[in-house]
Amino acid sequence: MDEVKIIEIKKSIFADNQQDADALRKELKAKGVYLLNLMSAPGSGKTTTLIRTLNLLKDKLHIAVMEADIDSDVDAVKIQEATGIPSIQLHTGGMCHLDAEMTRQGLDNVDLEGIDLVILENVGNLVCPAEFDTGSCRNAMILSVPEGDDKPLKYPLMFSVCDLVVINKTDVMPYFDFDLEKCREYIRMRNPMAKVIPISAKTGEGVEAFAEWLLAEVKNWKNQ
Amino acid sequence: MDEVKIIEIKKSIFADNQQDADALRKELKAKGVYLLNLMSAPGSGKTTTLIRTLNLLKDKLHIAVMEADIDSDVDAVKIQEATGIPSIQLHTGGMCHLDAEMTRQGLDNVDLEGIDLVILENVGNLVCPAEFDTGSCRNAMILSVPEGDDKPLKYPLMFSVCDLVVINKTDVMPYFDFDLEKCREYIRMRNPMAKVIPISAKTGEGVEAFAEWLLAEVKNWKNQ
Repeated sequence: MDEVKIIEIKKSIFADNQQDADALRKELKAKGVYLLNLMSAPGSGKTTTLIRTLNLLKDKLHIAVMEADIDSDVDAVKIQEATGIPSIQLHTGGMCHLDAEMTRQGLDNVDLEGIDLVILENVGNLVCPAEFDTGSCRNAMILSVPEGDDKPLKYPLMFSVCDLVVINKTDVMPYFDFDLEKCREYIRMRNPMAKVIPISAKTGEGVEAFAEWLLAEVKNWKNQ
Repeated sequence: MDEVKIIEIKKSIFADNQQDADALRKELKAKGVYLLNLMSAPGSGKTTTLIRTLNLLKDKLHIAVMEADIDSDVDAVKIQEATGIPSIQLHTGGMCHLDAEMTRQGLDNVDLEGIDLVILENVGNLVCPAEFDTGSCRNAMILSVPEGDDKPLKYPLMFSVCDLVVINKTDVMPYFDFDLEKCREYIRMRNPMAKVIPISAKTGEGVEAFAEWLLAEVKNWKNQ
């Protein structure tokens, strides 16, 4: 197994992130590459979810992964070892989010030739990443059961910018006071169009629905 | 029960937050008020932990609570209803952290006459709040078992600025792959002086140790 590449991300110099994000999306479109920006709080199970999902998709799509973290390379190593999918680690050097230019710095280190799908695992944070368009085709987030069903009330922007909310750790639902219907209702309040997929990355339940959503998304992006 | 006051926090105009934080600490010292800055990721159980802890302390200390959130007033209402302790809600208007001036805006709305302890529940975020001294006497954080034992590796600054790490949700330890000794070791790597207290805010186990730590802290602060 190849060693994981670690990229030290530098602060952006672009004044207009929105313009830069739109430009990046156009470039990705021209290359036929679909970029998913995956966000969540720390410890929601992003990496475990990705491992399960990518193992379902890796025979159907050519995939690359960028793992953003303030420090450490544990996630990129885990993903590459468990799926064989090329993964790089982006070190944000204390920065709490990624914007389009920072995402581009990561993509510059990925061999995009023939790649259909790049997944960007954003910094674990429900606040700042929601404020910056990374240039991705879609935003998705993972909310885990132990965090509580009231999170859409407390982190409104995150839920309103996400096209998909994956609710993870449903296997521990019996041990937590988490009302799935109430949570769906709170998510609808923030974003009536958001799709909600409950999964357990531990048992694998529901992960197929997430994989199917991603597969359909990538196909639509290429055929649009 | 009185209604909970909601304060809309404005952006700070002070250039030097460190200087402002030191000044605030001096003012608090002169008034005999101990301020605890309590941080964590979203959904770690800060509010439930506070309710348990404050109910153990409310006959021994005069306490006030400031709940910071981007939106909603659910936490301040919950705390005031469950403990009878006066609580105000600070709305950060999308901002991901509090600094000293923002903390002061909150304190200006608390009647500090006779108060021994003010608890500031910071925005749920393991990144940005660690970068700003709020003027508190101590920083404490809650890490919950479902978030994983590797969090000190991923959020180094947060763990290095905290004098106390409360590890919450120990009651669900059997359902998660969380190694308490490994976690203690990672915390020590970031901050050899940090005290670690495992608790379950749900069952109450260990909460007394957190209450005793706080009581001793407040007494030391007054007698220094």
